[in-house]
Amino acid sequence: MTAPTSSAPRRVAVAGASGRMGRMLIEAIRQSSDCVLSGALDVASNPGVGTDATAFLGHASGVQITSNLRTALANADVLIDFTRPDGTMNHLAACEDLGVQMVIGTTGLTDEQKARLVEGSKKIGIVFAPNMSVGVNVALKLLELAAKAMNDDGYDIEIIEAHHKHKIDAPSGTALKMGEVIAKAQDTQLADRAIYERYGETGARKPGSIGFATVRGGDIVGDHTVLFCSEGERIEIAHKSSSRAGYVRGSLRAVAYLADKKNGMFDMFDVLGLND
Amino acid sequence: MTAPTSSAPRRVAVAGASGRMGRMLIEAIRQSSDCVLSGALDVASNPGVGTDATAFLGHASGVQITSNLRTALANADVLIDFTRPDGTMNHLAACEDLGVQMVIGTTGLTDEQKARLVEGSKKIGIVFAPNMSVGVNVALKLLELAAKAMNDDGYDIEIIEAHHKHKIDAPSGTALKMGEVIAKAQDTQLADRAIYERYGETGARKPGSIGFATVRGGDIVGDHTVLFCSEGERIEIAHKSSSRAGYVRGSLRAVAYLADKKNGMFDMFDVLGLND
Amino acid sequence: MTAPTSSAPRRVAVAGASGRMGRMLIEAIRQSSDCVLSGALDVASNPGVGTDATAFLGHASGVQITSNLRTALANADVLIDFTRPDGTMNHLAACEDLGVQMVIGTTGLTDEQKARLVEGSKKIGIVFAPNMSVGVNVALKLLELAAKAMNDDGYDIEIIEAHHKHKIDAPSGTALKMGEVIAKAQDTQLADRAIYERYGETGARKPGSIGFATVRGGDIVGDHTVLFCSEGERIEIAHKSSSRAGYVRGSLRAVAYLADKKNGMFDMFDVLGLND
Amino acid sequence: MTAPTSSAPRRVAVAGASGRMGRMLIEAIRQSSDCVLSGALDVASNPGVGTDATAFLGHASGVQITSNLRTALANADVLIDFTRPDGTMNHLAACEDLGVQMVIGTTGLTDEQKARLVEGSKKIGIVFAPNMSVGVNVALKLLELAAKAMNDDGYDIEIIEAHHKHKIDAPSGTALKMGEVIAKAQDTQLADRAIYERYGETGARKPGSIGFATVRGGDIVGDHTVLFCSEGERIEIAHKSSSRAGYVRGSLRAVAYLADKKNGMFDMFDVLGLND
Repeated sequence: MTAPTSSAPRRVAVAGASGRMGRMLIEAIRQSSDCVLSGALDVASNPGVGTDATAFLGHASGVQITSNLRTALANADVLIDFTRPDGTMNHLAACEDLGVQMVIGTTGLTDEQKARLVEGSKKIGIVFAPNMSVGVNVALKLLELAAKAMNDDGYDIEIIEAHHKHKIDAPSGTALKMGEVIAKAQDTQLADRAIYERYGETGARKPGSIGFATVRGGDIVGDHTVLFCSEGERIEIAHKSSSRAGYVRGSLRAVAYLADKKNGMFDMFDVLGLND
Repeated sequence: MTAPTSSAPRRVAVAGASGRMGRMLIEAIRQSSDCVLSGALDVASNPGVGTDATAFLGHASGVQITSNLRTALANADVLIDFTRPDGTMNHLAACEDLGVQMVIGTTGLTDEQKARLVEGSKKIGIVFAPNMSVGVNVALKLLELAAKAMNDDGYDIEIIEAHHKHKIDAPSGTALKMGEVIAKAQDTQLADRAIYERYGETGARKPGSIGFATVRGGDIVGDHTVLFCSEGERIEIAHKSSSRAGYVRGSLRAVAYLADKKNGMFDMFDVLGLND
Repeated sequence: MTAPTSSAPRRVAVAGASGRMGRMLIEAIRQSSDCVLSGALDVASNPGVGTDATAFLGHASGVQITSNLRTALANADVLIDFTRPDGTMNHLAACEDLGVQMVIGTTGLTDEQKARLVEGSKKIGIVFAPNMSVGVNVALKLLELAAKAMNDDGYDIEIIEAHHKHKIDAPSGTALKMGEVIAKAQDTQLADRAIYERYGETGARKPGSIGFATVRGGDIVGDHTVLFCSEGERIEIAHKSSSRAGYVRGSLRAVAYLADKKNGMFDMFDVLGLND
Repeated sequence: MTAPTSSAPRRVAVAGASGRMGRMLIEAIRQSSDCVLSGALDVASNPGVGTDATAFLGHASGVQITSNLRTALANADVLIDFTRPDGTMNHLAACEDLGVQMVIGTTGLTDEQKARLVEGSKKIGIVFAPNMSVGVNVALKLLELAAKAMNDDGYDIEIIEAHHKHKIDAPSGTALKMGEVIAKAQDTQLADRAIYERYGETGARKPGSIGFATVRGGDIVGDHTVLFCSEGERIEIAHKSSSRAGYVRGSLRAVAYLADKKNGMFDMFDVLGLND
């Protein structure tokens, strides 16, 4: 990554400005020399509406949190949106009208809603990624390369993930995504290879399978480790999160990436140059 | 551990002398100054019978492998036995007669056979341990201490084990033993707390549960890691095997431990002084 | 740990109430049913003085932050103090006068100041620990046990620590403390065994040495791993911090521990029952 | 990797046939359907000369170990050579004459000797790699990719290596190679960035540095872990050896790779398709 060279900082609006992610984004924008906060949006019922967007930092930014979408977007080059699918769809319509780009980390979109994004990207530049973390995306790229280089029955592949005790499903979405990337890189389907549970008389390991193991405890933010095990050696590729900071950093890289884009739909592999 | 001070080296017979474990024991006895090989036993059908017990090392020990039990025990202070339950029972009878002590690593004994061992230990000293490894036993002791010190809903306990692709059951016996030691140290039963599988909509982690995760791949000899996870910190206690050498070393410590014992039944916690 | 059974919650004053540690303590006291906030102290120059001690949580506790020591201690059973040596000494004098117990996590005390604490503990109960974390103290106890059980040239001991990029010394104080605990458990001195650097033609590992390895990067709060390596197996004991929450939890356990103490000097091994 | 499709198995001669590596190679060739043992070479003083090359496996191959180079190469398509620089140079001359390809894992060649290899590769196909392990080479490729994707002061890079207690230098050659690959991928020199030791008042981590940490103990065959640490997340890429099997497997892949090569100089990146 080289330092951005664009003369003027990018003007950024943040949706969900009072939420945990919104606040981290606003704090990071404040510390960045490449962008500046131009708008802050939240739902009308949020008590933060009407207060200064950086009040929680003990500073005044001059930008008030508003529930009026057009007001929030008035001076923006780009909107960062980690909210809910319905909200994101509303924001999209306004952004298209106003020519404001979007960086979208909202999860749970339906196929229809995703198609709507693609439609919108004909007018504006959009980065859409269910996981905006730089590290997770680099890890996925590493796994793709590893899976191609070790595409051979001699390498047993295992994915171990650990999360906090509050997580209600298993394996994690990121663990599944890792499995999919590996399976695809080897011209196979994860569904044909995944082993999600082992207990009792399992028999010997099934050749070609991809095993998942799940750990739950304490406040672990999210650890993922993938093993490629053979006779005499193994390779491990791990990603470990300690906070949301990786999502924030990825979002700002997406903002910078869009600077010279007229329109189009991009993901984090594009932003990070991992498609080359 | 202090250096053994006994003047004369202990005379050791090895059962299953041509097997993988037997050979490692014989090689270790040869390198030790505290004991000397006095007998080598194997079944009559074994092609090694009649050859020198250290031929595989390119040396002659003067001890021939024999299928005659009395011959093998003739000059022995102690027999090391990692064979099968039936064989071990036969050896026991002869050892009682001849006053030869036993170090037994045979697994799969029935309750009746174990009772027979206890009976035998009235006449001779016996160390009996399904896992003779020094490291595994120290790890179990550490887990007992940790489980007492962190006996609290604030600590989520997880046991992760990894073994080679040929292993046909899960979790490993050692992982289960670890769970039992932890549960007992907290005045509970493992059966009431164990979670062996997690997949799909699991819900949040059940307070007080002990989770197991299983990894299978390559030639991993055996890794066990136990997590005690709370808010803000975690403790990990791990044991990792790279060969059978730990079993051999534990066996020789058991041989030394029995030197001044008239009779009695002991386990590796006794040998290693972990019951103090 | 069993649930505290004392009828009335303990009344706790917090020194350094506006600092990061002070705020975490106040938040934890608020969530605890075993204690209640009775006073909040900070230096006169701190802008928080005069505001409600839980304002940062968006709640009113009725306890104002004050710079008047006697006011802060007026209704307290115990003072929690993670400040500076000079401040702690001042607080000590007042606590002795008023019969208020102390839980002290202040670091950097001189030998003279420590002697002053001992003197004070004749009148009041004091828990003093440079590292109040439950996990670190349990880890130290585990290392003591491990060092005794594996006291043998066959076990090579290595201590690896990882901290954030801002840390200015190496190895960490906790890593050194671990080394000291291990050396003492084996009736030796760390100074005679420590190897702090390895580079170039080091020669084979010196038997009996304790090696240290240092990692620095990112925002790692603090990871410590101790290896006991022998032929064929190794044991790893690790402590990993992800936040200050472990210090807070340890402090509240110290508060509870003092409930039935008339006076005396205690450390975290006493509080956690690790001296038994 | 796809299964080799060549009709006839490749005929392989092994240099140093009585050594540890030689025996592992011979055993692997015996188990492979893609190649067959055609010759076995060792120095005249070796007691194995004149015995069958697979006697140590309890089988007869019909191939005798010989100290006569021409005899050993007589029926060979390719020679695998993990010996000493002088020996390798002698073998090269004969291989050129006879049109026998070479797979060379010998280390410690001078620049002059390496130039001689290049010269020889005009006549015959040569794979030359100081580390023939598939896993290590894949790990190097992964590090190259990671270093490019995380080329940014925000990522602190640390290399941790662990080896057995007999190793006499630090860091390991593989750790240094990893550092060089990373530095080169970021258009820098390792010498300008490497920090090999940390002790005492180190000051904060130097931005852009690459830190090395060394662990020594027991019989660890070789573990290497590289961290890319940033705020909130880290990526770890690790390679762990448990035996020489990785070198053997890599050697046989090199043998297969050369099947359709007339001549030329190749390394393991070529063999594994990692240069694409």
